[in-house]
Amino acid sequence: MGGIGLRPVSIIGIGSTPFSKLEGKGPIDLAVEASVQALGDAEIHPKKIEALYLGNFTSGILTGQETLGPLVANRLGMRAIPAIKTEGACSSATLAFREGVLAVANGVHELVLTVGVEKMTSASTSKVTAALASALDQSKEGSCGLTFPGVFAMMARRHMHEFGTTREQIAMVSIKNRKNGVKNPLAQFRAEVTMEKILGAKPVTEPFVLYDCCPISDGAAAAIICPTEMARKLSAKAISILACEVAIGNASIDMMSDMVSFPATVEAAKKAFSTAGLSTKDVNFVELHDCFTIAEIVDSEDLGFFEKGKGGLALEKGLTQIDGKLPINPSGGLLSKGHPVGATGLGQIYEVCKQLRGEHPNQLDNPKVGLAHNLGGTGAVCTITILSRNL
Amino acid sequence: MGGIGLRPVSIIGIGSTPFSKLEGKGPIDLAVEASVQALGDAEIHPKKIEALYLGNFTSGILTGQETLGPLVANRLGMRAIPAIKTEGACSSATLAFREGVLAVANGVHELVLTVGVEKMTSASTSKVTAALASALDQSKEGSCGLTFPGVFAMMARRHMHEFGTTREQIAMVSIKNRKNGVKNPLAQFRAEVTMEKILGAKPVTEPFVLYDCCPISDGAAAAIICPTEMARKLSAKAISILACEVAIGNASIDMMSDMVSFPATVEAAKKAFSTAGLSTKDVNFVELHDCFTIAEIVDSEDLGFFEKGKGGLALEKGLTQIDGKLPINPSGGLLSKGHPVGATGLGQIYEVCKQLRGEHPNQLDNPKVGLAHNLGGTGAVCTITILSRNL
Repeated sequence: MGGIGLRPVSIIGIGSTPFSKLEGKGPIDLAVEASVQALGDAEIHPKKIEALYLGNFTSGILTGQETLGPLVANRLGMRAIPAIKTEGACSSATLAFREGVLAVANGVHELVLTVGVEKMTSASTSKVTAALASALDQSKEGSCGLTFPGVFAMMARRHMHEFGTTREQIAMVSIKNRKNGVKNPLAQFRAEVTMEKILGAKPVTEPFVLYDCCPISDGAAAAIICPTEMARKLSAKAISILACEVAIGNASIDMMSDMVSFPATVEAAKKAFSTAGLSTKDVNFVELHDCFTIAEIVDSEDLGFFEKGKGGLALEKGLTQIDGKLPINPSGGLLSKGHPVGATGLGQIYEVCKQLRGEHPNQLDNPKVGLAHNLGGTGAVCTITILSRNL
Repeated sequence: MGGIGLRPVSIIGIGSTPFSKLEGKGPIDLAVEASVQALGDAEIHPKKIEALYLGNFTSGILTGQETLGPLVANRLGMRAIPAIKTEGACSSATLAFREGVLAVANGVHELVLTVGVEKMTSASTSKVTAALASALDQSKEGSCGLTFPGVFAMMARRHMHEFGTTREQIAMVSIKNRKNGVKNPLAQFRAEVTMEKILGAKPVTEPFVLYDCCPISDGAAAAIICPTEMARKLSAKAISILACEVAIGNASIDMMSDMVSFPATVEAAKKAFSTAGLSTKDVNFVELHDCFTIAEIVDSEDLGFFEKGKGGLALEKGLTQIDGKLPINPSGGLLSKGHPVGATGLGQIYEVCKQLRGEHPNQLDNPKVGLAHNLGGTGAVCTITILSRNL
């Protein structure tokens, strides 16, 4: 089937908490805060919402709280609707978004609230590391003690070996995204970092130092979906959803044929561009899943914006800067904004909407089409969303 | 919108592991086992499956394994499809089923695999109790140490107080369901229990003894969904999905207006009967969520089969026995079959299909319509599925 469904759909309201250490707020509080903001943005009463999809990854392990769908819906005053949690590691939020998009695009519901949430900073770092590692196959990577910094560091070394990508190019991802984050009021890190500081920092996992890794964060982000026809009547700032596609890849690294690409991204991109009827040339800017510096380079290639192996060079040439040909992570990305894992995907969608609405702290010049790329696990699952201004 | 979607849908294949203590098998193994059985039952190659929805509740907390969707899909040899985990406490499996039904009924996919799985017996009982309690609001029930046996025992006492329901009537749920389980090869308990034994047993939480509580179990169950038009061509034993509706209720007990009813069941039933265009009179048998004995009585009333307060009496009259007017839990129910929480809902759907196909170990006489009722939390969320033979 071509297109997103039977009818076009739009985002009519968005909301986001800051991504940071948010003391005294649990996952329910955070999800409610982002949802209330989105409902206010759309000027929609909670009782008009016909279904809630909530993305979350680690709440069971880190806070002992599951069943967040009904709990958040209750707190918002919603009654008797479906409220469903989706999980797919760091792609959990966009899986919720995707289910909401399908439900509205195919006439099941008229107004759906999607929200992603994560509360991470109240647990110890070792517990957070273990919780994140639950996205790896416990019988494989898990049993040999491998966690995410190790997986991505291996990818970095392989990318350097295979394509001559330099340590400096990899560091430039952090420098660019930290710089972009300075102006973003939602970002966890709002200070620039220099090449000197990165190259002189203590290693975390060779070749990574702390500046190559996104932080541990709390946060929530929300988006309300409705038919585009309804959106046109209700709002002047609604954003069209041109595609939202999901593809699984390899959920454990022993299944990867190489360490320089995520097939999940390649496949989801193929589907998303086909659904939207667009190509990479039509995209004006990208928010992508830079959980580690190398990820931005790999993702930018897997998405088809640069030839495989050329992502580092593109960065060095400045092509992905805010004033470049294809700005990547003008929000500051996960490296600067933070990475509340089950909220991140909707956080990216929030940032893309802000740009398309002309309301972004790092506003680009009149962007028409933006793409959000959200990855779970070691490329276990990828969601790609393509958005444009409503015309 | 009336009906289940744009086109009628059917279950073309089912599978289930036994529900029991299944040593040496993790959640991925169990989900794969049930899925392979369902694929074999339908004679569908895994590569024909266009999406996987996987229900699971406690795997993160109890086994440290999340991201089960992609991991199970990988193991089944599926590539680049969407694979999404859904969670809603003990209703997790039917939330997966519901998303699959919507996707097929509205033309998003042609063939969807839905599977529910739980691995509980490898953890300590106290850890399992804590994992299950993650369905309660941790800031309310959680902080005062309330867990599920306590919540349902309060309901039992209130039902006795309000309607004169007797301890013996409550015990009869256990006697009936244990008797039904004797012949079910998938059941965890296959021995009858007597009134004398129940009334003489040591209390767990007044008025409950061990026989009033379902066990801790491992297990997985799966169902494959396709358009009814396709099902007719491919299989003589396909089962029609007349309705699959979800409603949230009160996710914490301080929100309940009484302790003798679950609004989530009442609302989901209302929607399900409306979608199916049927009433309680059209239903020939029921698989319902008897996590505790009192739950069967409360559920049978909330579903509209008996007047509020009369569920105990109906049971005493034998109406819900296998040879009664409305057999309830001919499979043995959760009390006898076991309760691998994230698998239970699809386990019920498996049992209903077996009856409608005429293949059940406790085969009823030519049943046409069966209903499955799956409850999460303290009535936080309920899914009701109505199935019939394909005509």
